[in-house]
Amino acid sequence: MGANLHEECGLFAVSNGKFPLDIVTTCYYGLYALQHRGQEGCGMAVTHGENISLYRDLGLVSQVFDKEALSKIPNGSAAIAHARYGTTGVNNRLNVQPLVINHKKGKMALAHNGNLINDFELRDQFESEGSIFQTTSDSEVIAYTITKYRLKTKTIEEAIVQAMDDIKGAYSICVMSHNKIIAARDPRGFRPLSIGTLEDRFIFASETCALDTVGATFLRDVEPGEVVSVVDGVLKSDKTHCNKEKKSLCVFELLYFSRPDSIIDNIPVLNARLRAGSFLALEHPVQADVVIGVPDSGITAAIGYSRQSGIPYGVGLIKNKYIGRTFIQPQQGQRDTAVRIKLNAIRATVEGKRVVLIDDSIVRGTTSKRIVQLLREAGAKEIHLRSSAPKFLYPCFFGTDIDSSENLLAYNYSDDQMKEMLHVDSLGFLSVDNVTKLSDKGIEGFCTACFSGDYPIKNTKTKDKFRLE
Amino acid sequence: MGANLHEECGLFAVSNGKFPLDIVTTCYYGLYALQHRGQEGCGMAVTHGENISLYRDLGLVSQVFDKEALSKIPNGSAAIAHARYGTTGVNNRLNVQPLVINHKKGKMALAHNGNLINDFELRDQFESEGSIFQTTSDSEVIAYTITKYRLKTKTIEEAIVQAMDDIKGAYSICVMSHNKIIAARDPRGFRPLSIGTLEDRFIFASETCALDTVGATFLRDVEPGEVVSVVDGVLKSDKTHCNKEKKSLCVFELLYFSRPDSIIDNIPVLNARLRAGSFLALEHPVQADVVIGVPDSGITAAIGYSRQSGIPYGVGLIKNKYIGRTFIQPQQGQRDTAVRIKLNAIRATVEGKRVVLIDDSIVRGTTSKRIVQLLREAGAKEIHLRSSAPKFLYPCFFGTDIDSSENLLAYNYSDDQMKEMLHVDSLGFLSVDNVTKLSDKGIEGFCTACFSGDYPIKNTKTKDKFRLE
Amino acid sequence: MGANLHEECGLFAVSNGKFPLDIVTTCYYGLYALQHRGQEGCGMAVTHGENISLYRDLGLVSQVFDKEALSKIPNGSAAIAHARYGTTGVNNRLNVQPLVINHKKGKMALAHNGNLINDFELRDQFESEGSIFQTTSDSEVIAYTITKYRLKTKTIEEAIVQAMDDIKGAYSICVMSHNKIIAARDPRGFRPLSIGTLEDRFIFASETCALDTVGATFLRDVEPGEVVSVVDGVLKSDKTHCNKEKKSLCVFELLYFSRPDSIIDNIPVLNARLRAGSFLALEHPVQADVVIGVPDSGITAAIGYSRQSGIPYGVGLIKNKYIGRTFIQPQQGQRDTAVRIKLNAIRATVEGKRVVLIDDSIVRGTTSKRIVQLLREAGAKEIHLRSSAPKFLYPCFFGTDIDSSENLLAYNYSDDQMKEMLHVDSLGFLSVDNVTKLSDKGIEGFCTACFSGDYPIKNTKTKDKFRLE
Amino acid sequence: MGANLHEECGLFAVSNGKFPLDIVTTCYYGLYALQHRGQEGCGMAVTHGENISLYRDLGLVSQVFDKEALSKIPNGSAAIAHARYGTTGVNNRLNVQPLVINHKKGKMALAHNGNLINDFELRDQFESEGSIFQTTSDSEVIAYTITKYRLKTKTIEEAIVQAMDDIKGAYSICVMSHNKIIAARDPRGFRPLSIGTLEDRFIFASETCALDTVGATFLRDVEPGEVVSVVDGVLKSDKTHCNKEKKSLCVFELLYFSRPDSIIDNIPVLNARLRAGSFLALEHPVQADVVIGVPDSGITAAIGYSRQSGIPYGVGLIKNKYIGRTFIQPQQGQRDTAVRIKLNAIRATVEGKRVVLIDDSIVRGTTSKRIVQLLREAGAKEIHLRSSAPKFLYPCFFGTDIDSSENLLAYNYSDDQMKEMLHVDSLGFLSVDNVTKLSDKGIEGFCTACFSGDYPIKNTKTKDKFRLE
Repeated sequence: MGANLHEECGLFAVSNGKFPLDIVTTCYYGLYALQHRGQEGCGMAVTHGENISLYRDLGLVSQVFDKEALSKIPNGSAAIAHARYGTTGVNNRLNVQPLVINHKKGKMALAHNGNLINDFELRDQFESEGSIFQTTSDSEVIAYTITKYRLKTKTIEEAIVQAMDDIKGAYSICVMSHNKIIAARDPRGFRPLSIGTLEDRFIFASETCALDTVGATFLRDVEPGEVVSVVDGVLKSDKTHCNKEKKSLCVFELLYFSRPDSIIDNIPVLNARLRAGSFLALEHPVQADVVIGVPDSGITAAIGYSRQSGIPYGVGLIKNKYIGRTFIQPQQGQRDTAVRIKLNAIRATVEGKRVVLIDDSIVRGTTSKRIVQLLREAGAKEIHLRSSAPKFLYPCFFGTDIDSSENLLAYNYSDDQMKEMLHVDSLGFLSVDNVTKLSDKGIEGFCTACFSGDYPIKNTKTKDKFRLE
Repeated sequence: MGANLHEECGLFAVSNGKFPLDIVTTCYYGLYALQHRGQEGCGMAVTHGENISLYRDLGLVSQVFDKEALSKIPNGSAAIAHARYGTTGVNNRLNVQPLVINHKKGKMALAHNGNLINDFELRDQFESEGSIFQTTSDSEVIAYTITKYRLKTKTIEEAIVQAMDDIKGAYSICVMSHNKIIAARDPRGFRPLSIGTLEDRFIFASETCALDTVGATFLRDVEPGEVVSVVDGVLKSDKTHCNKEKKSLCVFELLYFSRPDSIIDNIPVLNARLRAGSFLALEHPVQADVVIGVPDSGITAAIGYSRQSGIPYGVGLIKNKYIGRTFIQPQQGQRDTAVRIKLNAIRATVEGKRVVLIDDSIVRGTTSKRIVQLLREAGAKEIHLRSSAPKFLYPCFFGTDIDSSENLLAYNYSDDQMKEMLHVDSLGFLSVDNVTKLSDKGIEGFCTACFSGDYPIKNTKTKDKFRLE
Repeated sequence: MGANLHEECGLFAVSNGKFPLDIVTTCYYGLYALQHRGQEGCGMAVTHGENISLYRDLGLVSQVFDKEALSKIPNGSAAIAHARYGTTGVNNRLNVQPLVINHKKGKMALAHNGNLINDFELRDQFESEGSIFQTTSDSEVIAYTITKYRLKTKTIEEAIVQAMDDIKGAYSICVMSHNKIIAARDPRGFRPLSIGTLEDRFIFASETCALDTVGATFLRDVEPGEVVSVVDGVLKSDKTHCNKEKKSLCVFELLYFSRPDSIIDNIPVLNARLRAGSFLALEHPVQADVVIGVPDSGITAAIGYSRQSGIPYGVGLIKNKYIGRTFIQPQQGQRDTAVRIKLNAIRATVEGKRVVLIDDSIVRGTTSKRIVQLLREAGAKEIHLRSSAPKFLYPCFFGTDIDSSENLLAYNYSDDQMKEMLHVDSLGFLSVDNVTKLSDKGIEGFCTACFSGDYPIKNTKTKDKFRLE
Repeated sequence: MGANLHEECGLFAVSNGKFPLDIVTTCYYGLYALQHRGQEGCGMAVTHGENISLYRDLGLVSQVFDKEALSKIPNGSAAIAHARYGTTGVNNRLNVQPLVINHKKGKMALAHNGNLINDFELRDQFESEGSIFQTTSDSEVIAYTITKYRLKTKTIEEAIVQAMDDIKGAYSICVMSHNKIIAARDPRGFRPLSIGTLEDRFIFASETCALDTVGATFLRDVEPGEVVSVVDGVLKSDKTHCNKEKKSLCVFELLYFSRPDSIIDNIPVLNARLRAGSFLALEHPVQADVVIGVPDSGITAAIGYSRQSGIPYGVGLIKNKYIGRTFIQPQQGQRDTAVRIKLNAIRATVEGKRVVLIDDSIVRGTTSKRIVQLLREAGAKEIHLRSSAPKFLYPCFFGTDIDSSENLLAYNYSDDQMKEMLHVDSLGFLSVDNVTKLSDKGIEGFCTACFSGDYPIKNTKTKDKFRLE
């Protein structure tokens, strides 16, 4: 609600196996569990021996995979699926994944979560050799690179390992050939990827909540740099690219993107958020009557703040759960009522109270400002805004659509200016130092570039804003 | 989630006035705010002088009122709107409201929330005189009764007052003629109905959250038995039927149906739920490590239990917010995984813990049983189930689809049997005595028939189950 | 194409019987065959013992009855179906038929083709007694009238016979109770209604083409004034109202509305059109090189003109068969290209030729004018326009939407003026005298009111224009 | 109706120009006019300076380009559009055109009508060099080939000219770069492509009927082998590949695919069909009472037969124009009624008559057999079937989906056997010799491979059936 940040995408894959499984339905439920990672479009590619059936479209899982669509997809032996995050525009259907490509040695389906930083260079090079691209996504560049090596290697796994020498940036990928599922994660592990088992089959999912949903048992995460393949029912691992780079899990996976019931690189997301709330209470204490969170992702940090501070936790904002992509926004001029329709303040909780308001982040500040106004109108006496993410100061090049600096509130204004602009009585952000301690086990390897400017890979892109379309 | 109870419907109306207002959009947002009261279908009737435009269909507000539909409805001077709760079947579109009828003296639109208990008798009488009915709903019976008197009275308000002598049961209604909006509530006030002002216009809504949403200011509730009309911009009241019967607000409006940000008959819904949780903690205390609620309506009672008991509140279950009406249920045999897809237990919260689980009610017990199993699989050591509603023992004839007794768990089994069936370590229900104390101000006039068998009106229906279709 | 006239509706019904038949599919195909009679909406009511399932919506048969809708309609023992002609507006769904009504003695479904002329009076009377109407259609008035008598009669057939004393105008109706199908036609027989047999079942259809489509054998027409009922597999006839009035079949059924493969009151539609063309050639001969027809309904008359005159028949205009209701019309200013998109002239047929152009009628003249222009642009040297219907001079009150006189070209202008306005070299209309000779067997009882002003029933309506909505 | 043959596709393009034109709407109407060439899917690519907006989907023009879709496409300076013929399957959306590709030197949109015969070889070669393909269509192979040369040439026109050395088979293509429209036709001119002018803009269309529809003036056809480009408002022509091969226009363009109002390579389609009918009358005369055609494409040949023979032309079959892609086919067992629903015989025309029945072709014979049965049931005394196409004996590799020989009736049976199987009194096919004389001007260069086995290019494909998916 606060952040309005988005990430590129959720992956789900089911390997071949003897255990009888409705592969299509399993992917359907898996995608449902990963819907929060991408609402623009989704798709699945199902293999049955030589052929690969592909079904993908713009829209939510519930829209793309209605009864008719599901009935059209023949069940198969293995599958990969993808949920993509949302932008608008007429020609985006092509960018919905998985990609299915035909190369010299056969067919390959690919699904990708993340963002390359050298896709321009690679694309340029391929195009110089006469290649053509049908999409503007870096995922097609990955497909090209894998194909380039595939012609020279014995197996697709080897091709992926070699391709990883060329492609730079954040990527978790699932690849399917007619008889294999391969999953790989970039050497820094920017984006999560987990492995589960369901009888004799292996399931790969961006988050463990999808494993739970389909009844699979969590096995372990794909390691940063690892290429895992399932061939003839056996899980094989190639660690050529492991342990060469510093681990750089996107800290926003814990604070915002992932579902609170997921466990990422052994860190329960819920605990990370409770800890963020507790750290906030320690860093930015205040005398108040109630702690409330902005639904949905501010709730858990608010509970953490409440526990640490002893100030009671309450439900102060209620979200209209029926507002979806088809909701028709108020006209210009009524814009201020947009927040009111999506969120309402609960007078019984905040009237006459000193309120601590926890949001997951403050990016542009527009939404925060309106929420504060809602609470004021509902009678809140004081409002102390706390952000469970540090100040956004730098753009992200690894798959999160954090804006160019010029649009970031904290980049442009001092704390006092922001306090005044947001009309709050006090304002506090989690420190970058504490954000690295969100794991129960202590300091972890996180990418904090958007807060610190400390980019795990030197960025060669010249543009400030990283997104193309 | 627990109860899966449904109620008939949400009402919304905008009166005539000079303040320029996009009536159609206002109704659209009003319906969005009342969507939780009815997801089967919705509609709005808009008047522009002599004519009334009606648009209604099966589906959610977002589905019925897409851009195209909205663009087709000419804006008008006043409107009434309705959200209807969901059943299935091919020929239900006719039952979607508002009704627009043509009678001798003109046109009338009507929207109704509630359930009559003498609709069979009235219908029978009308049919004896040759009348025909196009719907199976009691709302058409109300329309007939009003029309019967309309032919003899000078105003439609008088007709409604006289009709209220004949119709018995639970009803909140909004009626629109070409130049008036009239709102009425049955003499016992089973269903809520609130009045707000928006500049010189009056807004009527089943719940105050809809007033907030459209930026209206809450004025007061329509009193039980009152007929309120807006004629030429003036609010008039007829109290012929007021204060003749004991007030009988459906207690389930507070515990389950209404949104926590609504205020009904001066009782904030949120507070009523916190109080239910507190009473539960007092009536059924237990030594435990965490209190969790079943989302969405068990959450607030869980916070109340936590506050009263001192046991920390936690987030133990996460609901997939993308599961909607188009979600394709797992096949028979996979049925046990249905709950898993909609809800997931958060291991980090419950593993190794003694858990107090608060649900808003236990009707058939099926869902509760599956949630308990989810929590056990996530490692909960003990589970203490508490229901913030008393035991359901009797059917409801006033608009809630509580099943016939034979399907009610508590009607058929002892506490020990239920404890065993649900596989919980302890089980407790709020007492009927405490349920009457949910208002901050003390004992209120509630209908508690479904718990106590104490029906506010003697029921003349012979059938155990009240719903026709 | 020329006329753009519309009529209210197509009827189709299947009686009970022992021959196993997929009733729903049979109605579906029957409606397809009658689609030309009404494209606004359609529906079917299927009975299975006591209950009646109703499915109806706005749209073409292909849109309303998609796979999902068909799968939802339980197959039954008998059914009636209806296709309704198209107007626009938001609240027309209610007017889609069949109507299913609940009266004192049970349920009844009704489908109606035609137009009453005393519906205002009857409605007024019912409303005076307190009745309310949910639709603006006269069909509901018929339902009321039947119900009124149904309470006093032993059978529904008797009620219909008695109701026919009250209702005046054009009506063919199909009525279904839980175990009977009844079909009736007004005493003048304005609208067609045919009976077929399919093994031991009886089929009723507005046109015989629907009998052919479902494989039924034509038995005979329902006679003007006759009430035919199928009770326990036996066809019974009540002729109380027969032979009391002069037969007045709408001549436009033959010239325009009906499909050329239908046979109405023993007159093959195709032959009537060939005869119209032949009469035109006799009444308005001309020296020319080719005879062409405006598709679709001008084609056959063109062939008739060609045969009589000896001038070769050619295909001079081609219609784009993909233009349907969803076609987006050119903007104002491009309006002149609208005809060009729907129709194209075939240069090879008309270039340098003297062309006889046969249209089925000339109402407002707008379309004719554009077609003439198309042919001129394609090189036609002379254009001799012939209308296979006489001049429209008077409004219709019996179910055809012929406009009020002020919009009728022939009412306002002399032949010379029209010739100039339409930019044709000569112009000729079929005479009213010859239009009564369209049957092979000689002079038939036709309603020619729109041409002659000779109304079969004295019209009590005060309005010039008969349509309400 | 008879043939059920399909071809790949219709092309439409609008060049840049100063004349203000709603490019999107123009393409929309252009596609409507070409809908008969492809009903599977359609799309348009619109350029506005550097960027190209692409919108395409499965479905008819009316379905793909509804109001919402049209409103989403920004108007531009030039555009190409495509209508594709229909197959089924889940993953076909990718094959809908235009293709938009990104290559080293920019963007390019491509639309293709026809079929390559060396696409496997070319694809193989590209894949050997590491290229990947996202579609299974040969159109992507064309795009690759053009791109390959584009990197070495100064202009895209030159690249196309060079690419034409590599690609072999039937192809008419439209290509758009950000500031040019290029149209090209293979050296044998298998598929049509016409040029029109609309003020200072040039329009390219597969058939001239689309030029008429948008109000453009026909200029000339693109010559076989010609590459025409519009650069800065000037039409340039490259004739490198012209006049090197024998012209081989697909004769089925004249007999079946194209609209009768189109003129292809100076041959009016209508005249070609009239001639076919006349030749049939000369080759296969018979004493009969009426000549009828199978709608739609048998009609004109029937008129030709009638004119030549002196036997009157009549309308003997009526087609239900509402049967479309969504029509639900009768179940197995009712299959024989499928024809009856789509077509009905007109008893008034055929009863007791000796009928000459003209169909455009006889491929498998299934439909012909059912039509004959319909006519027999309607009372036809004799039926003399004439096919305005010669016997199909050989598969087509140039874009028509004529089946492998084993499914072709005439390949497997003698004339006597066919006569018996089809239950006709006599049977006649147009001779291959006469099919080459369909032009008014005498013998033309046609491809008659499917009748004669005389393939204009030696086919290197090993498979009998050419289609992949």
